[in-house]
Amino acid sequence: MHGHMMDTPLLISSIAKHAERFHGDREIVSVTMDDPRHRYTVRDAMARARQLANALDNLGLERGDRLATIAWNDYRHLEVYYGVSGAGYVCHTINPRLFPEQLVFIINHAEDRYVFTDVAFVPLIEKLLPQIPGVEGFVVMTSRECMPRTSLPNAICYEALLTAEPGDYDWPQFGERTASVLCYTSGTTGDPKGVLYDHRSTVLHAYAAVAPDVMNLSSRDTVLPVVPLFHVNAWGVPYSALMAGAKLVFPGPKMGDGEALYDLIESEGVNLALGVPTVWLALLQYCDRNGKVLNSLDRTVIGGAAVPRAMIETFRKVHGVHAIQGWGMTEMSPLGTCNTPKAGAEDLSEDEAFDLATKAGRGIFGCELRIVDDDGEALPWDGVAYGALQVRGPWVCSDYFKLDGAAGAHTDDGWLDTGDVATIDPQGYMAVTDRSKDVIKSGGEWISSIELENTAMGHPGVAQAAVIGVAHPKWTERPLLVVVAAEGHKPGRDELLDFFRGKVADWWIPNDVAFVDELPHTATGKVKKIELRRQFADYALPE
Amino acid sequence: MHGHMMDTPLLISSIAKHAERFHGDREIVSVTMDDPRHRYTVRDAMARARQLANALDNLGLERGDRLATIAWNDYRHLEVYYGVSGAGYVCHTINPRLFPEQLVFIINHAEDRYVFTDVAFVPLIEKLLPQIPGVEGFVVMTSRECMPRTSLPNAICYEALLTAEPGDYDWPQFGERTASVLCYTSGTTGDPKGVLYDHRSTVLHAYAAVAPDVMNLSSRDTVLPVVPLFHVNAWGVPYSALMAGAKLVFPGPKMGDGEALYDLIESEGVNLALGVPTVWLALLQYCDRNGKVLNSLDRTVIGGAAVPRAMIETFRKVHGVHAIQGWGMTEMSPLGTCNTPKAGAEDLSEDEAFDLATKAGRGIFGCELRIVDDDGEALPWDGVAYGALQVRGPWVCSDYFKLDGAAGAHTDDGWLDTGDVATIDPQGYMAVTDRSKDVIKSGGEWISSIELENTAMGHPGVAQAAVIGVAHPKWTERPLLVVVAAEGHKPGRDELLDFFRGKVADWWIPNDVAFVDELPHTATGKVKKIELRRQFADYALPE
Repeated sequence: MHGHMMDTPLLISSIAKHAERFHGDREIVSVTMDDPRHRYTVRDAMARARQLANALDNLGLERGDRLATIAWNDYRHLEVYYGVSGAGYVCHTINPRLFPEQLVFIINHAEDRYVFTDVAFVPLIEKLLPQIPGVEGFVVMTSRECMPRTSLPNAICYEALLTAEPGDYDWPQFGERTASVLCYTSGTTGDPKGVLYDHRSTVLHAYAAVAPDVMNLSSRDTVLPVVPLFHVNAWGVPYSALMAGAKLVFPGPKMGDGEALYDLIESEGVNLALGVPTVWLALLQYCDRNGKVLNSLDRTVIGGAAVPRAMIETFRKVHGVHAIQGWGMTEMSPLGTCNTPKAGAEDLSEDEAFDLATKAGRGIFGCELRIVDDDGEALPWDGVAYGALQVRGPWVCSDYFKLDGAAGAHTDDGWLDTGDVATIDPQGYMAVTDRSKDVIKSGGEWISSIELENTAMGHPGVAQAAVIGVAHPKWTERPLLVVVAAEGHKPGRDELLDFFRGKVADWWIPNDVAFVDELPHTATGKVKKIELRRQFADYALPE
Repeated sequence: MHGHMMDTPLLISSIAKHAERFHGDREIVSVTMDDPRHRYTVRDAMARARQLANALDNLGLERGDRLATIAWNDYRHLEVYYGVSGAGYVCHTINPRLFPEQLVFIINHAEDRYVFTDVAFVPLIEKLLPQIPGVEGFVVMTSRECMPRTSLPNAICYEALLTAEPGDYDWPQFGERTASVLCYTSGTTGDPKGVLYDHRSTVLHAYAAVAPDVMNLSSRDTVLPVVPLFHVNAWGVPYSALMAGAKLVFPGPKMGDGEALYDLIESEGVNLALGVPTVWLALLQYCDRNGKVLNSLDRTVIGGAAVPRAMIETFRKVHGVHAIQGWGMTEMSPLGTCNTPKAGAEDLSEDEAFDLATKAGRGIFGCELRIVDDDGEALPWDGVAYGALQVRGPWVCSDYFKLDGAAGAHTDDGWLDTGDVATIDPQGYMAVTDRSKDVIKSGGEWISSIELENTAMGHPGVAQAAVIGVAHPKWTERPLLVVVAAEGHKPGRDELLDFFRGKVADWWIPNDVAFVDELPHTATGKVKKIELRRQFADYALPE
């Protein structure tokens, strides 16, 4: 028997309507290519999103067609988010930092009909043009005055496109499982794979994100998403912030600029900022060098990579900022866990509290977690046992775009294998110990490459460290530490290996150290271990 | 085109599983008939809910069957909530304060197969027994030791029922539109009408409720729901509190006892309490008389009736407690609005802030609001225009149980007419000005009976006041003020009418005053205006 409740679909346009009605006056501030500090209101943004929707309908597109964006975080990109998805098309956000061959692959695989681009990326796209013949037009997200000369065919000025359209538009109603956004993962192996979100997953994820124990978003917040709009929907902030009525501050192309971020935070009264560790390193270094303190900032949500404890401590002790670690994946919209305190946390010592803060966090309602062993058997949540981390829920992907299950990322019983290896403690706090493919299998036991790397990074002579498994006749694999020495340091092999003693189990200590000038990195800045393993495939470990 | 996201139903059992995994240690404290301070954990509660589910499956019930509860707020009632809905049955919560003929109507209309009852209500049910022949058994929610002698046939002791069952149980998976809970409205006219919630509506409502701008529920909260579990799911707290991992404190039969509530709040560290104005009046009076201050309490959510400004001020000024007004209906799960501050609220004067706090609040994401005139045309949100308040959303009822649209509560375009008349200001704050059927239509304009009543209540000689429209040859209707004088006071007619001058528009001032010894009330304590109108149907207003 069904309940007698209204059959109201969860749509992204419902967020647009809610925000306009209840938070129409709220400001959205952007740094853009053509305006150092653009400001308008949620009401303006949603009116322009409707103008865009009208323009899209006039382009002769079909529902479900993909429209790409290659752009920084600013108000026009936000309008495209709402205009495209709200009207029933798919907003395909692309990372401009990918290698050209990846960009070409992604645009063609997605069958993008139009590409929305910032002025800055026009030259990049011009070069790709011969290889992306399916794209029918290019919308340059700028004013008429700043419209560049370009060899792109059918280049349309975004402001000209909007000006021609009325702001009246009835957002169409359709099923909540309708596709809304497409985002490709940039894995370290193989072709990028497309994750196709829907309206339901997006709205549920936003509900979960505003909760006090996740991003704690209210209408009194001022939020700076430094995480890019092309990176898993900027962790869903464009949706959750408008759902809550928070003020939005977009850094535009100033994403990695410590000084610009500091000025934005202080002048706009930002109290919540979100980004990956790298950008916060730039910000903290700027503050440190210039004797500045982050006054308005109350908390940062940090994800995308493990957060160094030193960063959490600096935020807290120097700036009074709570650094909240989150964990997720493109495949997960992305939120899976968030590290916020439970009742009783006030009884922890400072040291215990920082230890806890280095974990990935506890599960968010709506994303189930489990860890399993090699046989797929569930492992206990004791903070010690570690295994493959698997997730399930309404904002977790069931497949990749056009791959029909070929990726093999899902278990037979319907969980996504995250590719991470993790522990979960009795309180539900999860800690990633390694990537499955990077874990070192020594004598039937697992050794965490990440834990060894973190330990090595604590040595003053080490600038970068990576640990990989290399073949061993007796133990199958044993760890090799690959190191880039810190400037002005020349750490010795034995000195480094001794450094592990007492910090990890003796049998975890790497068998050798290789010194290199640099480590290979992916386009998104991750160490390319597959490359390293190839490089050291024939490495002979000392006996 | 659909997205590629998992098809995971939103089920009440997902909340049970999440709470157990991430908040298993969290305490649930109850006052019960047989234990003045029962305490156990979420883990215990969910294990017992599974035992109950096993027991229910053994009773030979069908999915969708209704199982009634007539009980106060305690841990066993919570277990029934999860055990019954989680296993796919419908938990039908009944208000024991209803008139016997209403109880009989409701039990028969719902076709309840079993009734779960507190010991206290056994005598009441014994009297109803001849009129509810469809009920197959009665589960008395107590221990074996406290099991009363009863003439009820097939009377089962709750604890005996559970003890026989294992705690292992796989919560079944089914569609999220499956019915979960049934709750009848106790309107002032006609038979009670059943609102049938589903799993989807319940989970979405819980997501919305935990948001910082609604109940702001986190795992660090300790929550006392004084609003009964038989009253619209205690505003959803059993779901939202477990979703967030808050500690729950249940007052059992001590709902209206100021001293008991005070002791519970202080001794258990309650920081959020929820209830109707009447219970807070009892609490505040107790504190006032005994020189007590609410130390641990941080905020109250108050709904079910308009909250007097004096109550909001007392909470704030005497106890440092934020009194947050909410508005909703049984038909709405119940949350529609919540009165929390927006950015800029800190600039309001104390007086302005209290004025704002007396409004019903702003819309919650997931519940659309509109106000319409007599022709169904939408009215502006200017804080002045008032009209029929209509709502729409996934936790708003689409019909009543077994009525097939006969109630006529919905508009042709799918909105629920709430029966309230309201204004909405430009910031989205809604204020109820009247019930549609109580509004006085004078010369084509509307006069708010509630505003006149509130004004009259400000006169020291008035204990209770009700305003109704009586027939008038020229203006169709004119207001009549019906007054119960305060003890020891004998206010005069002209004195009372003069009291309105300058406080409301001149043409709103009632044409006469009628003094009575008492006002007729419904079982839930609302003034029965239909009865008053009958009483004064032939009243001749002075010219």
